Amino acid sequence: MVGAGQLARMTCQAAISLDVGFRVLADSPADSAAAVCPDVMTGDYTSLADLTAFAAGCDVVTFDHEHVPGQHLTELMAAAVTVRPGPGALSHAQDKLVMRQAMASLGLPCPRFVPVSAAAEVADFAAGSGWPVVLKAVRGGYDGRGVWICETPEDAAEVLRHGVAVIAEQYVPFRRELAALVARSPHGQAAAYPVVQTVQRDGVCQEVVAPAPELPAGLAAEAQRLALTIAGQLGVTGLLAVELFETGSGLLVNELAMRPHNSGHWTIDGARTSQFQQHLRAVLDLPLGDPRPVAPHTVMANVFGGDDPDVYGRYVHVMAADPGVSVHLYGKAVRPGRKIGHVNVTGDQLDDLRDRAGRAARYLGDGKE
Amino acid sequence: MVGAGQLARMTCQAAISLDVGFRVLADSPADSAAAVCPDVMTGDYTSLADLTAFAAGCDVVTFDHEHVPGQHLTELMAAAVTVRPGPGALSHAQDKLVMRQAMASLGLPCPRFVPVSAAAEVADFAAGSGWPVVLKAVRGGYDGRGVWICETPEDAAEVLRHGVAVIAEQYVPFRRELAALVARSPHGQAAAYPVVQTVQRDGVCQEVVAPAPELPAGLAAEAQRLALTIAGQLGVTGLLAVELFETGSGLLVNELAMRPHNSGHWTIDGARTSQFQQHLRAVLDLPLGDPRPVAPHTVMANVFGGDDPDVYGRYVHVMAADPGVSVHLYGKAVRPGRKIGHVNVTGDQLDDLRDRAGRAARYLGDGKE
Repeated sequence: MVGAGQLARMTCQAAISLDVGFRVLADSPADSAAAVCPDVMTGDYTSLADLTAFAAGCDVVTFDHEHVPGQHLTELMAAAVTVRPGPGALSHAQDKLVMRQAMASLGLPCPRFVPVSAAAEVADFAAGSGWPVVLKAVRGGYDGRGVWICETPEDAAEVLRHGVAVIAEQYVPFRRELAALVARSPHGQAAAYPVVQTVQRDGVCQEVVAPAPELPAGLAAEAQRLALTIAGQLGVTGLLAVELFETGSGLLVNELAMRPHNSGHWTIDGARTSQFQQHLRAVLDLPLGDPRPVAPHTVMANVFGGDDPDVYGRYVHVMAADPGVSVHLYGKAVRPGRKIGHVNVTGDQLDDLRDRAGRAARYLGDGKE
Repeated sequence: MVGAGQLARMTCQAAISLDVGFRVLADSPADSAAAVCPDVMTGDYTSLADLTAFAAGCDVVTFDHEHVPGQHLTELMAAAVTVRPGPGALSHAQDKLVMRQAMASLGLPCPRFVPVSAAAEVADFAAGSGWPVVLKAVRGGYDGRGVWICETPEDAAEVLRHGVAVIAEQYVPFRRELAALVARSPHGQAAAYPVVQTVQRDGVCQEVVAPAPELPAGLAAEAQRLALTIAGQLGVTGLLAVELFETGSGLLVNELAMRPHNSGHWTIDGARTSQFQQHLRAVLDLPLGDPRPVAPHTVMANVFGGDDPDVYGRYVHVMAADPGVSVHLYGKAVRPGRKIGHVNVTGDQLDDLRDRAGRAARYLGDGKE
C-alpha cells in the first residue's frame, strides 16, 4: 500500500487475519502505519524510482491516498506491476473535472459544473445557477481544503488569483450528506455496504451513522446502485466511496474516493466484513466478504486533537466511563484539529449511540465533555 | 509478550487499535506473531538473560504460553519488571498439582486427585474412585498431551515409567465441557464473558459455541462465579480461562489458563471487546471493555492442517462459498493436525452456524467437505 496513514494502518491490521503479506511505502518512519507494520519502505510516492523499488516483490500495489501521479502508475503497469485501482479508474478520484465529466457522460446526477479560469466565467455560470457558487480545486483537495464557497464575483476572483485549476459548481442546498461504499474485484464481483449518513463540520467528517437514519428504501437502493454503476463503469478495483448529497429532488454525486474511507470506519466494529479486509479481498481478487451490519445501528465519531497531547491520560477515563466504546487510535502526534483516531459504538438505541460516540470522541480529543 | 504464537499474533493485532507498543519474544523469526509484529526479539524464554534483555523498555511483560520458569519471573520482578500475571498466580496454570491443591483449599469443585509416583498408588486411588483413572503430567501438557486415561494398573505403570511427575484424577463422565473466560486487572476490576461450550476431539478443541447452548442461567452464573473467584483468590491479572466439566451434579474445574485462550477466539467477531484487547486492557490496568456478545450466537471452529499445504488455494473457495465466514489464519507452516487458524460465524440460527463454521474449517484444513 502506497502511503502509511491511518488507512494503511487499519489495512495492515486487517491483513493479519488473512495472512496477507503487507508492505507500506511511508513518507517517514513516524507515519501512522509505519509504526505497526513489519514491512516498511521509506520513500517518495512522487518518485517513479521509489515506487518501482517499492513494488518489487509485491503481487498487487494499492493506495492509502490518491496523490500518486497517474503517469507513474501507467509506467509501473508497463513494467508488469499490478496496480489496483488502475490509473484510469483512479484519475476520477484524483481530478474533479475528469470525475464530473465522467459522471455527466454516464448520465449520473451531479451538481451543475464548469471548468473556470476567470471571474467572468464564474459570473456567467452564476447567471444560470445563482450565487453562491462553489469553486473546487481540480486536484489535491481533501477534508474541505480546496473548496471555496463564493458569494460574489469578488470572492471568486480572490480564489482564482491563486492560479490553481478549479471548477465552478452549483451550490446544492442539501438535506444531508450520505455515503455509499462498495467494493469491486477484478473479476467484477461487487458488494455494497449499507448507505450511511455523514455529518461534516467545515468540510471535515465528524460523525457517521450507519445505516443512514430513516432513509427511504428506494433512496438507499438508488445510492447503492449509483455507487455500483460508477464502480463498474469506471472499472474500479478495490473500494469506492461515493459521497452524495440528499436533496429534495433526489441524490447528487459529490465526491469519489477509491480506497478505504472515513465513512466506512464504522465497519470495523459494525459490519461482518470491515472495509479494510474488503479492500484487501477486492484488490487481491479474492471473493468479497459479507457487508451486512452486525447490529441495528453503528455510530462512528472522529477524534480530533486538542491542546493537550496526552491522549492516553484521557483514554482511561473514556474506557472507564463507557466500556462499550471501541477506540481506534492512529498513533499520530496530537495537533489541534488533527484527526488522531475514531470511536465506534454499536447497538439498538440510535440517540444513545450518537450521544455516547460524540461524548467519547470529544473527551478523547480535548478532555472536554 | 513472551512467546510469538498465534495468541501473540492476535494480541499484536489488537494492540494496534489501542496504539499500545507491542514487542514479542520469539523462538524464531518464523513464529506466527513474529511475521506481523514490527518489534520482535528472538531469544530463549528459559534464559533469564534473554528475558531480562526482552523486558528492558517494556512497561509490562505478559505471556502467550505458560512455560516461562517461575523463578525467572520472580527475578524479573526483583529487578523491577512488571510481570502480569505474576509468578504466584501463574504457577497455578503451570503446575496441575499446585492448581488442584489451590482449588481444594478454596473449596471449589474439582475431580478427586492425588499425586502419584507408583502404580500401587494409582491402584489405591482407583479403589476409591474406580477405573479408569486419569493420569496428568504435572507440568508441560497441553492440547491433550500429558494426559493419559488408564484402564488398568498396567496402563498406569506404563505411564509412570516415563518418570514425569503426575497426578491421578478421578475420571469424570461429563455431559459436556464448558469454559468460563474472565479478565481481572491489577485494580481488581473484573469482567466475565458469556460461558461457552467447547467440543474436543482427542483432547484438542475443535469447536466453541458461544454462549453455551441451553445452559441453565444458574449454571452459567455459577461458572462465571467460579472463574471470578479463582481470578480474585489467585490474584490473576489479565485473562483467566477456566475449563469446566458439566456433570449431572454440577460443575467441576478441569484446567486453568492465564492468557488469551482458544475458547475465547469467538470474541474477535462475536463480542464487543475481543479477548485479545481485553487481555491488553487488563495487564495494562486500563478499564476493561464490554464482554457482551454482538449476536445471539457465535461459533468458532479450529482449522487443522491436512496433507496439502496450500491453504490459500482453498481459502478462495471458502470465501466464495460463504461470504459471512470470518477467517483468521496464523501464518504457520501447514503440517497434518497442526492448528493453523480458525473461523468464526455469527448469527441467529445456531445449527446453521455450526454447520457453516465446521464446513469452512474442514475445507480450509484439508480440502474435504
